[in-house]
Amino acid sequence: MIDQRFRVDKDLLQSHIDELGNIGLDSDSGVLFRPVYSAAWLEARDMLEKWMLSAGLTTRVDSAGNLFGRLDGHLDGPVVLSGSHLDTVRNGGKYDGALGIHAALAAVSAIVDSGEKPRRPIEVVALCEEEGSRFTSPMWGTQAILGRISDGQLDELVDEAGVSIGEAMESVGLPKDRIHEAARSDLGAFIELHIEQGGILEGDGVALGIVDAIAGQRHLNISVSGHQNHAGTTPMDLRFDALTCAAEMFLAIERIAGELGRPAVATVGQVTVEPGSRNVIPGMVTFTVDARHPEVALLNALTEEIEKSIEAIGRSRNVSVVTEEIFYREPTPMDRRLVAAIGNIASQHGVSAQLMPSGAGHDSQLFASAIPTAMLFTPSVGGISHSPLEFTHIDMIVPCTEVLAGLLWALAAEVGTESVLPH
Amino acid sequence: MIDQRFRVDKDLLQSHIDELGNIGLDSDSGVLFRPVYSAAWLEARDMLEKWMLSAGLTTRVDSAGNLFGRLDGHLDGPVVLSGSHLDTVRNGGKYDGALGIHAALAAVSAIVDSGEKPRRPIEVVALCEEEGSRFTSPMWGTQAILGRISDGQLDELVDEAGVSIGEAMESVGLPKDRIHEAARSDLGAFIELHIEQGGILEGDGVALGIVDAIAGQRHLNISVSGHQNHAGTTPMDLRFDALTCAAEMFLAIERIAGELGRPAVATVGQVTVEPGSRNVIPGMVTFTVDARHPEVALLNALTEEIEKSIEAIGRSRNVSVVTEEIFYREPTPMDRRLVAAIGNIASQHGVSAQLMPSGAGHDSQLFASAIPTAMLFTPSVGGISHSPLEFTHIDMIVPCTEVLAGLLWALAAEVGTESVLPH
Repeated sequence: MIDQRFRVDKDLLQSHIDELGNIGLDSDSGVLFRPVYSAAWLEARDMLEKWMLSAGLTTRVDSAGNLFGRLDGHLDGPVVLSGSHLDTVRNGGKYDGALGIHAALAAVSAIVDSGEKPRRPIEVVALCEEEGSRFTSPMWGTQAILGRISDGQLDELVDEAGVSIGEAMESVGLPKDRIHEAARSDLGAFIELHIEQGGILEGDGVALGIVDAIAGQRHLNISVSGHQNHAGTTPMDLRFDALTCAAEMFLAIERIAGELGRPAVATVGQVTVEPGSRNVIPGMVTFTVDARHPEVALLNALTEEIEKSIEAIGRSRNVSVVTEEIFYREPTPMDRRLVAAIGNIASQHGVSAQLMPSGAGHDSQLFASAIPTAMLFTPSVGGISHSPLEFTHIDMIVPCTEVLAGLLWALAAEVGTESVLPH
Repeated sequence: MIDQRFRVDKDLLQSHIDELGNIGLDSDSGVLFRPVYSAAWLEARDMLEKWMLSAGLTTRVDSAGNLFGRLDGHLDGPVVLSGSHLDTVRNGGKYDGALGIHAALAAVSAIVDSGEKPRRPIEVVALCEEEGSRFTSPMWGTQAILGRISDGQLDELVDEAGVSIGEAMESVGLPKDRIHEAARSDLGAFIELHIEQGGILEGDGVALGIVDAIAGQRHLNISVSGHQNHAGTTPMDLRFDALTCAAEMFLAIERIAGELGRPAVATVGQVTVEPGSRNVIPGMVTFTVDARHPEVALLNALTEEIEKSIEAIGRSRNVSVVTEEIFYREPTPMDRRLVAAIGNIASQHGVSAQLMPSGAGHDSQLFASAIPTAMLFTPSVGGISHSPLEFTHIDMIVPCTEVLAGLLWALAAEVGTESVLPH
């Protein structure tokens, strides 16, 4: 039955995307923002729950605020879980996160509509918080499911208005001292469909991305100290300009990542120039480097090459440079058997697919540390995300969602995905 | 008598520099700030007036707050005027501006001490405001002397606390409606001694700089618009990064000014990177260019070459660039006869001297539009200015001051400076 094709209700899927995409949208400014534990978030969760019930699923909200919709199987477990996050960044779009919930619900609905009952239970999940845009609590919902919240975090994580994440939970009816009850040990696999957020699938004309690994990240803080001086009286040949020195570094970073080739990326995103006066030669420039690669050896090679180059440029200009690593996250490979299964199903469905890393972080990277996990990417038009302009056409979403349905069915049936689920 | 050498009282000059340099100094923070019409400024002016009286000069404060100390000549006029500004930038030093007043007073004192009475009157001036660090009113004192203040400015120019320059004048006993009385038509020449503020004299081992021109300035505002996108998901080869594009421009600007050679300078001092997040490719960078050259043709060539290069870099990266000129000031040549006279006197005194442009703006550039004007530069140790670290050793100041005394005497006597003063 691995080649069974479940038919997704395209119109319903489109209307869900549009309807949920209006929740948290400020109609005056056009800004969409649905932070965790806000009124908009609650409204969106309630809307999803209604849709889950309509689809014939039984629903449950856990003590962290994650919403589950369950299709029972012949056996009790382990559970095949699929979904993504309900929260958005500020001024985000209606696809990042939400599409993974919509697709899981549409896939499970298609299974329900087929009249077949899966062997194992399948659950759709709306994870309560991934972006960390209200609290600095990325992947909060997944942490709760994996039992990784510490008590201290409930009071320590505070939003811009001074509200702690524990207080915010209570304000939406979630007693904070019960958050540990969200931890689960009955999960067998996690599958997340997500927009690519980049332009590779669109550029290559491919319908589906199968994520083989989530990139590791190394972030650096660089301080370049030159000599601040008068822009009118200091000849060019007597300058120690921190900014032009940093500019050489920016270009070296771009060149090094480019020469290493896809999927290596390195970005300078934050820059501070001091004193920042039109007529003063900059004495100090600080900037960040965000380097990513899905293979740990190449991530390290990329970062080391950048650090060596920065030091050499500083030396060549007699300007002092301090480099500090401020963030490190290892690459996370996806489950090889799931990756292969997705490829097989896509091929049987006639959906063009390619392996690719994820440059962005996702809930899947946490799930992957506990259970077999995989991700499917739909193309992002123009490679745009975290913007009201993010868009994926429904005709691009449906085939990926049907592959997802096939995978969830196969996993639950353990057909073509033998040995993935624990026994 | 052009070769008469007037002897400057070195110890008195040093003690004046140190004593005045403590007025406006916050002893806790070490920050010196003596903005126009402040209590510190008033205290400094009163101190200078006392010293002028001690030197045997008659004193007068004009209706703008400029302080004059006059040594009468055998004739009534025209007046030979020498001095500089009493105000400082925030966190400034005790040489920028103040040294020109000290040197003029020491030079005239040396003439008084010689027992000679000049043919024309010589006046020492402490100009009330040059830096524009309280109000955006650079060279306010000189504007008043030249009759160039408009009534509207008195109310329109407002400091950070919301006090207008007119109100600030009244607070130190200067009725604002009398500012026009500061205008003078009896001036014959203006001579300003100033610290170089750069490292050329020190680097070349030369004792005196004779300014042949004050550099013209063209300031540009550049906006570079790339595509803002996710730093993890956008491959290097699909980026339109506004920052790395701007970095190429920063280096081109540095290279172009360097290749044109001294005294061409061009500086990027202010940079804004948007959105300024560690994990977002910058979509927009704006920056300033401050280009200077004492020759108008080369100033224009420098700026045009920079603009051409910026456009070409934008085109090569498919990134759009908008360039706007936000400030233009023509170069100001100093009086050729005065420049020659300073050279002669320096040579007679055995003081090594070289012609050089001033990269910074000075009161002299306004005076030069009305009367014959010249500037003498003393070396700046380390090329430092606008800093508590600015320093010129007294043994470097005395020879320049004695050249100044010789020049003031020669001008007043019209010996060796024939035809400079109007008759």
